[in-house]
Amino acid sequence: MGTILGIDPGLTRLGVGVIAQGAGRRVSLVHVEVLRTPATDRPEARLGALSNALERVFDIHKPDIVALERVFAQQNLRTVMGTAQVSGVVLALAHQRSLAVSLRTPSEVKAAVTGYGRADKKQVGTMVAKILGLDAIPQPADAADALALAISEAWRGGTTSAQTAGAETAAQKAWREAEARAHRPKLKE
Amino acid sequence: MGTILGIDPGLTRLGVGVIAQGAGRRVSLVHVEVLRTPATDRPEARLGALSNALERVFDIHKPDIVALERVFAQQNLRTVMGTAQVSGVVLALAHQRSLAVSLRTPSEVKAAVTGYGRADKKQVGTMVAKILGLDAIPQPADAADALALAISEAWRGGTTSAQTAGAETAAQKAWREAEARAHRPKLKE
Repeated sequence: MGTILGIDPGLTRLGVGVIAQGAGRRVSLVHVEVLRTPATDRPEARLGALSNALERVFDIHKPDIVALERVFAQQNLRTVMGTAQVSGVVLALAHQRSLAVSLRTPSEVKAAVTGYGRADKKQVGTMVAKILGLDAIPQPADAADALALAISEAWRGGTTSAQTAGAETAAQKAWREAEARAHRPKLKE
Repeated sequence: MGTILGIDPGLTRLGVGVIAQGAGRRVSLVHVEVLRTPATDRPEARLGALSNALERVFDIHKPDIVALERVFAQQNLRTVMGTAQVSGVVLALAHQRSLAVSLRTPSEVKAAVTGYGRADKKQVGTMVAKILGLDAIPQPADAADALALAISEAWRGGTTSAQTAGAETAAQKAWREAEARAHRPKLKE
């Protein structure tokens, strides 16, 4: 229950996904956008612009928790430093609003929404659209990834206990439910 | 001319060095400190605390420019992500105050203050103390490194033109001047 802000960090494209968590596993879309900064801008201008835009997102949507992709130094070296810089800004902004940040690995997020930790971008986008009842996959992938982060956070506690009990996992349940309503005509797959 | 804030970024220890730049190559110490956060704290608490402390530094010392160590993904993988996160916070804070950030590599800084791009910590600390007329090397090394960053920024423009002209570089001049007054009794070497 509450509002979850998912952030897929990046200097060039930063995915922002806000969902509302209802009873049980219910989640619904509140807001999704991708913030961009030009690679030709100075680093401080890029981080400053993203910081200002994120402050507006925090102020408008008043999330109860932030789900942020955990960045590893082993990832793409060309972009990882910028991604880590953006993550630092998100962490500091969240703390200033007394919000906890849940750091989620890409494989945790993929496993939560598709049931498979090595799912590709298309599978993740497809499931995000199904889970949130959207007519199309959010574009670009950063938008879908931000929503996937928020969804994985919403289902976090339940997933663990269900798996411990040997029951259907949150992801399996969502997948089953999503498949059941997969007649939506405009969904890109 | 003006106030230069040097920052040696890090999550566990963040070096802050403020110097005043006078006429010619003159620089003097205004403030030096090392901000620390415990590794046991949550990432958002660490970044948030550093962000708050850095805001105070900006507000109190009103720097005209920030000299920040440029972080490379090739550096120590265990600490590089935290360092990059802190750098992101510094960049965003500087931009909010309309300050430019000069990103300086460790070898640029070492070359500026010691004349040698591969100088060790002790050489850098010794020269920082000499240049600023301090009785002892600022400790820990993060403090000396932050001051070295600020000094290298102060001497930046002149260094390049002097080198272009084939004249004595700023570092060589400072080294010569520092050697000339190296009779200071309490300087650790």
